[in-house]
Amino acid sequence: MSSLLNRLTQALRQLPGIGPKSAQRMAYRLLLHKRHQAAELAQALSDALAGVGQCSRCRDLSEARLCSVCANEQRDARLLCIVESPLDVLAFEQTGSYKGLYFVLHGQLSPLDGLGPQELGLPLLAERLAEGVIEEVIIATNPTMEGEATAYYIQQLTDAAQVKTSRLAQGVPIGGSLELLDGATLAQALLHRH
Amino acid sequence: MSSLLNRLTQALRQLPGIGPKSAQRMAYRLLLHKRHQAAELAQALSDALAGVGQCSRCRDLSEARLCSVCANEQRDARLLCIVESPLDVLAFEQTGSYKGLYFVLHGQLSPLDGLGPQELGLPLLAERLAEGVIEEVIIATNPTMEGEATAYYIQQLTDAAQVKTSRLAQGVPIGGSLELLDGATLAQALLHRH
Repeated sequence: MSSLLNRLTQALRQLPGIGPKSAQRMAYRLLLHKRHQAAELAQALSDALAGVGQCSRCRDLSEARLCSVCANEQRDARLLCIVESPLDVLAFEQTGSYKGLYFVLHGQLSPLDGLGPQELGLPLLAERLAEGVIEEVIIATNPTMEGEATAYYIQQLTDAAQVKTSRLAQGVPIGGSLELLDGATLAQALLHRH
Repeated sequence: MSSLLNRLTQALRQLPGIGPKSAQRMAYRLLLHKRHQAAELAQALSDALAGVGQCSRCRDLSEARLCSVCANEQRDARLLCIVESPLDVLAFEQTGSYKGLYFVLHGQLSPLDGLGPQELGLPLLAERLAEGVIEEVIIATNPTMEGEATAYYIQQLTDAAQVKTSRLAQGVPIGGSLELLDGATLAQALLHRH
């Protein structure tokens, strides 16, 4: 195999979920039948790397200093939803039922991986709470062990700032099947029945 | 979502086997945690597009005018293996048991998709057979309907050039299970028992 082709295969392997065989097939297909798309991908990657940074307020990915949500004066600035990833922001936005602002952690507290409060932007969050505009924080970390630990840490910040804090409801997912649900979720659903 | 991010997501979707959700996740992951790899991928794509073309003799992907196989004087120039794709060349090379040259069709005869003899490089193949160096052609198209039709067409060229022609043996794959094998293959294996 030519060295340029080999280098392309190696680079494609770095994409999440792409194994050696798929990378090889992709490299050949891009060079043989999809040259136009390959050029567009190279350009899109370069442009995005150069132009996409983080919003200075919520840490979501953004081309401008302030992302479109933070810059939108129609949003309810008293409500702040804390999420782990920009994809969670997207998921909330797609529901169309949340009108507040966001704060993106880009991960969970995980000291072993070098992810401490600093890396998750928690000093920035504390500053923001101290401004006194935010009246309610919704902690929407993932319901995993690390997500819970992160939520607990954030709860201490919001308690210190005396800001009302809530968590997402836990229970039976719509369209889910009771018999396939784990016991812990079912117990929560039963406890918080309404 | 920012427009640069959206464009990157669309470009990633063009990769074979990547759906909308994976493309989104990839785009975020590349920009957040794998910026170095993303830059390398953009560069590798550009370089490969600029530097990789086709070998003028066998039509395999190659950086030079002649690929490393065609340029290698140790290879047996009397033997020519005709394959559908550069990945097939790679597969043969990995066996280490083929010492001849290759000819890559880049597809199968498929008039409805606009793939005729011209697109598969068959005039080039005919010229090559006319040179009189090649003494045996191995037709290694895939054992599908279109592959068989392509093989039949090539056989007519080799017959006209009076060059000995062979096909890959059909039979039981090593490590395969007889009870799972299709009837046609088993019948061939029985017919050509040795």
